[in-house]
This record gives sequence, structure tokens and C-alpha cells, in this order.
Amino acid sequence: MTESKTIYTVRVGYADTDQGGVVHHSVYLRWLEQARIEYLRERGIDFRRLEKEQQLTLVVVDLHARYRSPARFDDLVDVHVWPARATSVSVLFGYAIHRGDTLLVEAEVKLACVHLGAGTVHRLPDPVAAALA
Amino acid sequence: MTESKTIYTVRVGYADTDQGGVVHHSVYLRWLEQARIEYLRERGIDFRRLEKEQQLTLVVVDLHARYRSPARFDDLVDVHVWPARATSVSVLFGYAIHRGDTLLVEAEVKLACVHLGAGTVHRLPDPVAAALA
Amino acid sequence: MTESKTIYTVRVGYADTDQGGVVHHSVYLRWLEQARIEYLRERGIDFRRLEKEQQLTLVVVDLHARYRSPARFDDLVDVHVWPARATSVSVLFGYAIHRGDTLLVEAEVKLACVHLGAGTVHRLPDPVAAALA
Amino acid sequence: MTESKTIYTVRVGYADTDQGGVVHHSVYLRWLEQARIEYLRERGIDFRRLEKEQQLTLVVVDLHARYRSPARFDDLVDVHVWPARATSVSVLFGYAIHRGDTLLVEAEVKLACVHLGAGTVHRLPDPVAAALA
Repeated sequence: MTESKTIYTVRVGYADTDQGGVVHHSVYLRWLEQARIEYLRERGIDFRRLEKEQQLTLVVVDLHARYRSPARFDDLVDVHVWPARATSVSVLFGYAIHRGDTLLVEAEVKLACVHLGAGTVHRLPDPVAAALA
Repeated sequence: MTESKTIYTVRVGYADTDQGGVVHHSVYLRWLEQARIEYLRERGIDFRRLEKEQQLTLVVVDLHARYRSPARFDDLVDVHVWPARATSVSVLFGYAIHRGDTLLVEAEVKLACVHLGAGTVHRLPDPVAAALA
Repeated sequence: MTESKTIYTVRVGYADTDQGGVVHHSVYLRWLEQARIEYLRERGIDFRRLEKEQQLTLVVVDLHARYRSPARFDDLVDVHVWPARATSVSVLFGYAIHRGDTLLVEAEVKLACVHLGAGTVHRLPDPVAAALA
Repeated sequence: MTESKTIYTVRVGYADTDQGGVVHHSVYLRWLEQARIEYLRERGIDFRRLEKEQQLTLVVVDLHARYRSPARFDDLVDVHVWPARATSVSVLFGYAIHRGDTLLVEAEVKLACVHLGAGTVHRLPDPVAAALA
């Protein structure tokens, strides 16, 4: 499904770095999260309303990241995101983070649809499932 | 009220640093927050229960910090915290962060008691007011 | 000097929130930082090159923030930043963070010019001083 | 090598949570990092000195985490860490994060030894290799 892809561009902040002089490895996870929110927005899904009106959220259950090359302060990086696989209650997003032609990070994140009140797994709402198809 | 003081000790993590080689200035705010939670715990106030059972929280409304000397990775720093002033709906905590004899940061943080549902200012519960007296 | 102002717009991420349902108060500091970097960029100062080529950085020495109203997940917020005062070795930036017409946070941050190697205060380079004039 | 294990205990802070009411998934990475620093400290390796005196650091190159159950504000969680495998230039740490008897997260993190100046992969110093054996 890579034809259905969103590219989220982010400027690396000073606070994103650590004393090794590169972006701390935990920071990329925030970018992955924001990229999938933008992916959904571009397909008509407002994640804020999903939580507020339907009490449903997407919870990270599995995360795999391979760090190839470090991002640095003030870089503009492109986070490519696409749904790689989906079930009735979960979705696996694939990611590739680039700075220009350089691949920085590859990742997959599996998210489960969870009801915020009950904390139980829930079927993905039809519009969300459609956005991931 | 400096006779009523708590000292919260924290080890500086790698992720707390930035590429300048020191702790990022925003990180100290997390330590101040944790220190006041420990201050309350030592006086019998469980902040988690305050939120859950009474739907009350403490919200930062004013913050002043003076950075004297930087903390560095792996330092053990002591966060001294005490209530400097309180009203029926708010409290001003004073702070001094030290590494050994070196003063790193001085700060004051004013917090208002707010009802989580309504978002409105609320009288401090009596046990909290007593803990701050 | 409010005629020389930059507006930096940021989308609130999910990770920026806390369990109180609003943006954590420490997150705004990252936005203030990014806003002043953009302020300098718009006036020809590349902060990354300043650090790399001249070994000079700007270090936060004093911070005052007044939180008026909370930002929330997915908000688009505008960070207004302007130099309020400058000396030969420091600058005080003023800030106002808005969501539409609503004022969220007002802040002032004083930064000192510091040599990264020596850790000593240093005169602001002429181009930086000019950008702040 | 699970007989050689360190347990790092951490109190969940308020800032570690998100508006879903649980710890944000990126926060666990900071705990994993701190746990491996403590693992090394218990075996005589001072990570700060490794960087300062030998210009060597450990860089995350591969990360896999499985989130089983969420940590919550004010929980005391135990991060179990052990070296699962090592080569002459890298180490794979295994992790299990628990709250009491409840397994919260399982993870593996592969780190490469890298020279801070050159950015190139470097042989693990003998004392570090011994601590991981």
C-alpha cells in the first residue's frame, strides 16, 4: 500500500539533541507519532475527535526501529509513513525517515484500537479502517 | 516556612542533555515537578489519589527560574523544595537545585488548584492546605 | 522593538500532553527555543553555524513564564517572539503564545552568549547583535 | 547471561504521562537507557568517563519493544536489564519492565560502539567487553 503515503516534514530542534551531538533516539518516536496523525488527517480522520467523541484511541503495542544515520540539529527531515497491514482492531504503520537522499531511520509501529474508558481492544471505526485500506 | 523542606535527589540521564553538553533548561522543570510531588507525599498527600478521587490537580500558573551553573550527565543533583507562600486556592513553591555545594538553579513555581472536569479554580482541600502551612 | 517580531507556528503533538489533558508546562520552553532560532534565521543568523564555526552559543540564564490558558493536543499555536532588550553579552527575548485570539502564555527568556569550549561569557558577534538591535 | 542482571527502579513522573492517562511510549526508552548505564556502573564502567576520556560512546542502532500493559503516573517500575549477546563492536541488551508482578514492556536494544570524533564504529574497550561477557 505504499501508493498511499504521507510525508511529514519536521525541523530538528535544539532540545531534540543530546550531548553526543545528534538527535536522541527517543525523539524519532514523537515524529513517527505525529506523522501517523497527519496521515489520518489527510484522509479525513481527526484523531482529536476520535478520542473525544468516540472515546477511541490508538495505542502502540509493538515498535521496531533501525537507526541508520543520525539526524542533527536544524536538519529538515522527511518522515514517510504508510499503512503496511491492518486487521479489524489494529494497524501496522511502516516508516522511513530521510534527510534529502540519506535514509536515517526505518521503523514499523503496530497500534491497537483501544477504548479510553474501558481500556479494552475495540474494532477500528469504519472511516478509520477505510483510511488505512 | 523553610523549616519544612524536602530534598529530592535525581541522577541526570543521558537524554536530559543537549548538544551543548549540559542539561537542557526545560528538564529542570520535570525535576521541580517531581520534587513537589515528593514534598506532598512526605506529608501524607498522595497526588495520584488527589486527582483520581477528588478530581483536583495543581496547575502551574507562574514560573521563574534563574540558571546559575549547568548540571551535567550523570550528576547527582539535590532539589530542595519548600512552600514559600499559600492562599486558599494556590501555593508558591520555592526551589534550590544543588550539586554538592554548587548552586545550579533557583526557582519559584506558583500553582493553582483546579478541578479537572470543570477546569475552574478550586479551594485547596484541607489536608493539602495543612501540608503547605 | 515589537516591530521586529517573528511568529513561529507549531502543531501540538500527542506526546506534548500530560494526563491532565493539556500541554505539559515544560513543553512550551521547547517552542520558545525554536521560535528564537527562527527569529535569528529570518535575520540571516544560522544558529547551527554560530555553534560550529564560532563555538558560541546562547545559554538560558533567566526564565519567567505566565501560563494563562492551556494549549491542547492538535492545536495550532503561534509563538510571537521579539528581542526586548540586549547588552553586549546577553539578550532578553519577549514572547506571547496564542491560539487564535486566545493568549496562552507570556514569557521572557534571558540568554547569555557563552563560548562552548571555555564555558565563559563572550561578546555577541556583530551580526547577531545587529539582528537583535 | 540472565544471571548477570541489573534492576533499575524508577518512579513514574507526571510529565511522563500523556492525555491517554498512561506513560507515553517514548518515555520507556529513557528508562532503558538509564538502566544500561546503571548496569555498566555496577560492573565498574563509568559511562561519563568512557565518553570523556576515550571519546567512545554506545549508539542505539536497533530497537524492538513490545508494550504489554501501561505504566501509570506514580508507579514504581523495575527495569530488568541484561546483555543478551555481544560482538567485538556491539552489544544487544535485553529488557523486561515490571510493576510488581505485572510485565509492562519487553525490549531489545542493540548498541554499537562509536568514536565520538570520527563517528566510526570502534572496538569495545576491554573493560566494557568484560562487563558484558
